[in-house]
Amino acid sequence: MSEPSAGEGLLASIKGPRDVKRLRVEELPALAAEIRDLCVAAVAKSGGHLGPNLGVVELTIALHRIFDSPRDRILWDTGHQAYVHKMLTGRASDFATLRQGGGLSGYPSQAESEHDIIENSHASTALSYADGLANAYALRGERDRAVVAVIGDGALTGGMAWEALNNIAGRKDQDHPLVIVVNDNGRSYSPTIGGLASHLSALRTNQRYEDVLGFVKDNLTKVPLVGPPVYDTLHGIKKGVKDIFAPQAMFEDLGLKYIGPIDGHDTAIVEAALAKAKAFRRPVIVHVITTKGHGYSPAENHDEDCFHSPGVFDPATGQEVPKPYSWTNVFGDEMVKLGKERDDIVAITAAMLHPVGLADFAESYPDRIYDVGIAEQHALTSAAGLALGGLHPVVSLYATFLNRAFDQLLMDVALHRLPVTVTLDRSGVTGDDGPSHNGMWDLSILQVIPGLRIAVPRDADRLRELLREAVRVDDAPTVVRFPKGPAGAALEAVGKLGEMDVLRSGEPDVLIVAVGPMAAVCLEAAALLDAQGISATVVDPRWVKPLDEALVLAAAAHKLVAVVEDNGRVGAVGDAVARLLRDADVDIPVRTYGIPQRFLDHAKRPKILSEIGLTPQDLARNITEAVAKRTAMLENHPAR
Amino acid sequence: MSEPSAGEGLLASIKGPRDVKRLRVEELPALAAEIRDLCVAAVAKSGGHLGPNLGVVELTIALHRIFDSPRDRILWDTGHQAYVHKMLTGRASDFATLRQGGGLSGYPSQAESEHDIIENSHASTALSYADGLANAYALRGERDRAVVAVIGDGALTGGMAWEALNNIAGRKDQDHPLVIVVNDNGRSYSPTIGGLASHLSALRTNQRYEDVLGFVKDNLTKVPLVGPPVYDTLHGIKKGVKDIFAPQAMFEDLGLKYIGPIDGHDTAIVEAALAKAKAFRRPVIVHVITTKGHGYSPAENHDEDCFHSPGVFDPATGQEVPKPYSWTNVFGDEMVKLGKERDDIVAITAAMLHPVGLADFAESYPDRIYDVGIAEQHALTSAAGLALGGLHPVVSLYATFLNRAFDQLLMDVALHRLPVTVTLDRSGVTGDDGPSHNGMWDLSILQVIPGLRIAVPRDADRLRELLREAVRVDDAPTVVRFPKGPAGAALEAVGKLGEMDVLRSGEPDVLIVAVGPMAAVCLEAAALLDAQGISATVVDPRWVKPLDEALVLAAAAHKLVAVVEDNGRVGAVGDAVARLLRDADVDIPVRTYGIPQRFLDHAKRPKILSEIGLTPQDLARNITEAVAKRTAMLENHPAR
Repeated sequence: MSEPSAGEGLLASIKGPRDVKRLRVEELPALAAEIRDLCVAAVAKSGGHLGPNLGVVELTIALHRIFDSPRDRILWDTGHQAYVHKMLTGRASDFATLRQGGGLSGYPSQAESEHDIIENSHASTALSYADGLANAYALRGERDRAVVAVIGDGALTGGMAWEALNNIAGRKDQDHPLVIVVNDNGRSYSPTIGGLASHLSALRTNQRYEDVLGFVKDNLTKVPLVGPPVYDTLHGIKKGVKDIFAPQAMFEDLGLKYIGPIDGHDTAIVEAALAKAKAFRRPVIVHVITTKGHGYSPAENHDEDCFHSPGVFDPATGQEVPKPYSWTNVFGDEMVKLGKERDDIVAITAAMLHPVGLADFAESYPDRIYDVGIAEQHALTSAAGLALGGLHPVVSLYATFLNRAFDQLLMDVALHRLPVTVTLDRSGVTGDDGPSHNGMWDLSILQVIPGLRIAVPRDADRLRELLREAVRVDDAPTVVRFPKGPAGAALEAVGKLGEMDVLRSGEPDVLIVAVGPMAAVCLEAAALLDAQGISATVVDPRWVKPLDEALVLAAAAHKLVAVVEDNGRVGAVGDAVARLLRDADVDIPVRTYGIPQRFLDHAKRPKILSEIGLTPQDLARNITEAVAKRTAMLENHPAR
Repeated sequence: MSEPSAGEGLLASIKGPRDVKRLRVEELPALAAEIRDLCVAAVAKSGGHLGPNLGVVELTIALHRIFDSPRDRILWDTGHQAYVHKMLTGRASDFATLRQGGGLSGYPSQAESEHDIIENSHASTALSYADGLANAYALRGERDRAVVAVIGDGALTGGMAWEALNNIAGRKDQDHPLVIVVNDNGRSYSPTIGGLASHLSALRTNQRYEDVLGFVKDNLTKVPLVGPPVYDTLHGIKKGVKDIFAPQAMFEDLGLKYIGPIDGHDTAIVEAALAKAKAFRRPVIVHVITTKGHGYSPAENHDEDCFHSPGVFDPATGQEVPKPYSWTNVFGDEMVKLGKERDDIVAITAAMLHPVGLADFAESYPDRIYDVGIAEQHALTSAAGLALGGLHPVVSLYATFLNRAFDQLLMDVALHRLPVTVTLDRSGVTGDDGPSHNGMWDLSILQVIPGLRIAVPRDADRLRELLREAVRVDDAPTVVRFPKGPAGAALEAVGKLGEMDVLRSGEPDVLIVAVGPMAAVCLEAAALLDAQGISATVVDPRWVKPLDEALVLAAAAHKLVAVVEDNGRVGAVGDAVARLLRDADVDIPVRTYGIPQRFLDHAKRPKILSEIGLTPQDLARNITEAVAKRTAMLENHPAR
């Protein structure tokens, strides 16, 4: 397999948007083809977001021909569809380093380019950014700077997109180009759900769409293709372009102008629509129909998700390197069993049926699965409703996305003491998707929720066991969190201490509290400590909230307590252990090891863990130092 | 002023919904009048939500005549408009205890009544609960149980309401009565904003509304008023009732049936519409027009907010007892000054212009204030956009509502290192509004946000000073939090320790870290400790994140560190101080005092503070005990 490269074609000549504008219209299909080849080659090698990027090739070309980035601002919602944008803003030659540590980020990055703005991968934010930016430019008198937000139909199911639409429609100062491009491929990860999806689908299939496409195509072929800007040519065809304006009730009711629907794979018509939208100088929605995975048949024909985000694969066939049996698979299989045993168990996904492992559950119990769209808030509060109605809902999310529903878990679920189980996949360091994908917040912020119980399984058997314990709790919410990837070998307990598993008994030097999957690392660290003459006991609390009171006695029998977790170290289990001991007046020194509280750059998980000191070697060294300092301190200040 | 009482009229005879159904139609106006009198009398005495409850009197009567609570489920969004519901479900005689400790809650309460469901006061949740409840009943075969959600037009500006509407419209199983009552009074706290508001306003003023009202009124007068259920009478008038169905584009586009608009102060027509909606057995929106404060002229004529939530007032005149100059006033006045000095400062409110103190700013700088509706997510992310555009936004929220925008502050603002200042009013124990209003979460969950700086002023001068420091930070977000009520006397520093203010110098026994307004309590506690022979130093860190490194040296010079804060004690400043010391290998005992991590029942703030031990006496006693235990421990185990 050759290195992904911009080659020697048109793409190699593109150093920035100016070069895109210089191309003749008839060169654009060739450019699009080169871009697709590079997308496929790069993602085949590194994994990444493929389907979404293949779908926006022509749209992105058109955007950079009509608008003047970075003076005009192009905001990519969710960010993972910005590969084409990166290629057109001087970064095509860097795609061999995509998602590698130190290489090109899989998301927009301000450090990479002045053309990039939103680095966050959480969906539905772009319209709010756009509203704020447009307000700022209006206030500063920079009314010629267009603000363009590109948002998927899936992201429109997220509530904050609605909040933004409502505000954009009600803007005090409307004299400003604010263009909302709805990239409608009918899907989030999975097909988009709900009333909005039906409405968009109705727009898509109506007669006018065909009419408008036909009209513009006809007229485009009648006028000479003299190169960009195409819209100048089209500008004269008053009747035709006016017809593209099709005020559609729903957006129009809010007071937003609507252009569309437009064939998103026809650069010329997309350019015409965008140019018109820009010239309109008011908020306007441009509804663009695209096909996820367009132009690469293994993606177009991929049933599950149009190759939304494959791992490494063979670019010729689209055949993915098989992935080992993962935490997600363990969870998914156990949910099928639980669903069979208990008909009160229902499951909720926020537009991520396959990625969170609920596909088999959905197939087995189609009336007990709810895909709510990219709507974590609704996921939690509708779960509260299901629980009030006597069912036990399991809400499955990526850990980082629970942040969107913190208030709902606190107020709508926990305040009402409702039995809702939340499972958090992709917890801890996930790595190559960058700072906003790491699941490093949940073990901290969830500590404050009264009554909530949190389990962290250390291996596949414990995940099965703790999930079962969680859905048995009937008077409080529970959380079960596990990481990305394969579950690793089973780690059997050598004893119990209260409800905690003792994984290794030592002399009373150091008590290591291993949170979930850090158990394997802790056991290795304990072996290394042994070689230094420091004996370590290793316990896995299984449930980290509430902590087992047995921990107090266990701690009091040791000289130092070390807590190791795959979460930001501020406010997490380490702090909880320290507080538990303080509150019991047990002033044993505690040392806590976790993710430093900063945004982590993208890189492979092992590289990151090594950088942040969460390896057996680092832990053993740090614990040895802590013990040595403690010993020295006691010798100098025996009264402490 | 006499005690609020259900009197000896109709209301006194209402022990539950059955009694409401028994009344004759011509008795309803008298019942409504009694309810209004009781509302005014009760709120005049205790403070509370007046305008919203006066607006839903007829609607609530109609709901309890048409539906069978608790078998049918009536869900009150935001909860503060449930007073009438409480009166009709057997609690009219308890209104003398409204919002008093141990008395009637100002919100629905499951402990009070089987008719109450949602206890949380955060807006826009009811539709999600309704979707979940309806799904549960459908799955369990309880298809005759209607689910009714009452939601204000203001709450529809919140994103999670949109998420729910999208899901309700797309329900797999539609054969179930799910009635959404949009209580449209044109206001949140302030007038509702945005495109939705314009749309609702257009519906309200269209010709059909008048036509339908006229038709139904005419027909009602033609048929004998034989008592409930009125809808049976009306049922025969096919044409008329069918006409009430007016599919309105926006909701209809989503696939939701729409009935309305209906005069919400005409019980008969509201009953007719609700009965039709119930019989429809599918999701349906009933659009009811009401007037906030209806029937009580001081509320109807109250410009600011129709007496949304007054304090104690004279029921005869509506004259409120003047409130002392508050933290909110200090903030509001300083914002006006800052706005004059810097034209890059803009302000954002989430439908709370007056309550958060931004009314004067808005009047002085009308082009620099943004009311985004009940949309905290959009508030933060549009602030990110404003900051990207070169402005310095100040987002002013009640502390508890920031939970709705945690992800946006983390990912959209902090990850992008944007200078956005968030001011949190009503932080700490607020008291009589119950568990969901207390601002006891922010100092914990905000600890995890990289780069964020948090200031907690101890008095009015410090609020002015720290707000100015906050808006000078240009490369990171800042938070300034302050409580409800008057700011109290200025507490001048007697010295500095790094950037911290020393409020009291003591011998090296105890170092008390006083967070913000707890400084006064800590100084009193220190005086009491003095009397016990324990000398205390009291410092105010001013900025509690990041903590000043000077704290490490200061702590090392003392025998015990006590941290006192008006926030949940889990994960807050106390834990942060303890971690700072641990990380510096300073193993001084730390004791942390704050709000216990549970949901607090409603009561007056002083009563709650006393119950949870945040008084000078309790602190002095607890610190004395901690010192004594420590001393005893050192004597028994000198090696520790």
